[in-house]
Amino acid sequence: MTTAASIEARATEYFRGLQDRICAAIESADGSARFRQDEWERPGGGGGRSRVIEGGALFEKAGVNFSLVHGELRPDFAGSMPGDGLAFVATGVSLVLHPRSPRIPTVHANFRCLRRGSVSWFGGGADLTPYYPVREDVLHFHRTWKSACDTRDLGRYPAYKKWCDEYFYLPHRAETRGVGGIFFDHLREDVERDFAFVRTCGDAFTDAYLPIVERRKNDAWGDRERGFQLLRRGRYVEFNLLYDRGTIFGLKTDGRVESILMSLPPEVRWAYDPHFDPATEEAQLASYLKAQDWLAEGS
Amino acid sequence: MTTAASIEARATEYFRGLQDRICAAIESADGSARFRQDEWERPGGGGGRSRVIEGGALFEKAGVNFSLVHGELRPDFAGSMPGDGLAFVATGVSLVLHPRSPRIPTVHANFRCLRRGSVSWFGGGADLTPYYPVREDVLHFHRTWKSACDTRDLGRYPAYKKWCDEYFYLPHRAETRGVGGIFFDHLREDVERDFAFVRTCGDAFTDAYLPIVERRKNDAWGDRERGFQLLRRGRYVEFNLLYDRGTIFGLKTDGRVESILMSLPPEVRWAYDPHFDPATEEAQLASYLKAQDWLAEGS
Repeated sequence: MTTAASIEARATEYFRGLQDRICAAIESADGSARFRQDEWERPGGGGGRSRVIEGGALFEKAGVNFSLVHGELRPDFAGSMPGDGLAFVATGVSLVLHPRSPRIPTVHANFRCLRRGSVSWFGGGADLTPYYPVREDVLHFHRTWKSACDTRDLGRYPAYKKWCDEYFYLPHRAETRGVGGIFFDHLREDVERDFAFVRTCGDAFTDAYLPIVERRKNDAWGDRERGFQLLRRGRYVEFNLLYDRGTIFGLKTDGRVESILMSLPPEVRWAYDPHFDPATEEAQLASYLKAQDWLAEGS
Repeated sequence: MTTAASIEARATEYFRGLQDRICAAIESADGSARFRQDEWERPGGGGGRSRVIEGGALFEKAGVNFSLVHGELRPDFAGSMPGDGLAFVATGVSLVLHPRSPRIPTVHANFRCLRRGSVSWFGGGADLTPYYPVREDVLHFHRTWKSACDTRDLGRYPAYKKWCDEYFYLPHRAETRGVGGIFFDHLREDVERDFAFVRTCGDAFTDAYLPIVERRKNDAWGDRERGFQLLRRGRYVEFNLLYDRGTIFGLKTDGRVESILMSLPPEVRWAYDPHFDPATEEAQLASYLKAQDWLAEGS
């Protein structure tokens, strides 16, 4: 029989292993960098294992966090969540990879299991943020997630793809953060099925992203592309600090600040009202930052 | 007789002139840079005059905005403001100066007049964010504001200084944004007295800040100091996007994004969990980022 406690224990075990496997795959792709690990305890309860690369050959900054935290929710914050009471447990893996090359997209993924009072649920997702998007890469990313979704339940992909477009959106810029992916939360219909689905997604992450890194890592770039990447990273910061629920959840539950803000890019620029000639590669990005059905043409 | 409309008209005139005078003083201090001006209209009503320097000799980025906007508040946002109904008018000057040298502090100031329904009020303030703080500079800044406060009303300085410390505070970092200054809002006891007070403060800005620029502009710095400045600028971004009411007011009232986010530094870095040896100059900053009575010893 499955109890709330045992699903958390099993999820915790899976997430620890997932962190190990993803970190190993990133180190192998980077070729030279090794993750530095910090094990930390949260004063309010629980702790985590943060792993970071700074200054890798391919990855300028890569943060892959595992955490298992528990405690009491702030009453003003608890209202937005399922469940009852203020006691909570949260376990999961969260990662953001910032490649050095502007030709390689930034990626984010998060897979988690939460419990508030007597109610447990799963959530997660992954989204891709290119600077110089290549259609083939975007299709590969979405196809991988569609295939992961289809393994467990036909028809989840369109809903979770839409959820991702809606979630990773900057209203003040009227653009999506990137080209999307999938996003889902509050899965609590069938704990075994939901856990299996999250495992399928977690296991699909490296397949969704690393082939894109491989394809783009030798593409040429210079100061111009670097400058554009730094400006676009500003949008990433704007999203994370203005809108991201994970960041806000972490800060409002007295999470470990350095682990929460590991998602921020290593180097960023803001210029006043930059414009790009419509004929430039930089101007092409805008057409990718609108929700659209990437797999529409039966790809 | 003073009506609500006429105080806004007079405030608007004052703020336009203040923008002119502050920009002229900044250009003169910089020596080479000239402000670029954008006049813009807000689709919902009103508009503004944004002025920016990028890549100046002393100022890596300087933004000085004037705006006069009006329209309807979003109902969920109006609740936090005095007055009645949803109609609002806001006029003011807002500025952030990011010097190139890590030896020169960043500064922010804002002076404004708002009306919601039948209630008008003034607000404003100025705060200093050094990277390598010099006590004498901090005292000069605070003395100037104390003196401005004392001109109109003895005893405002301690209250407004405290308000500033409380407002420009990053709870997740448990530190103030900088060394403070003054902050006040919702002044609506006596419109003529409040307007005179805001004019005194607006006129004091260049005296509070530019002598510090003059004193520090020839102080030596290199890659190490630049690196520290870029990390600390990250805290500035965190404050502005996570907590600043002016930024949130602007974004929630469909303000002009480029003018609102002009406050963000031109170049920023985030490193994972950086540490500085207690013996270093960089480690000294922490002792300045705690609310304290700078003018306690009768300076």
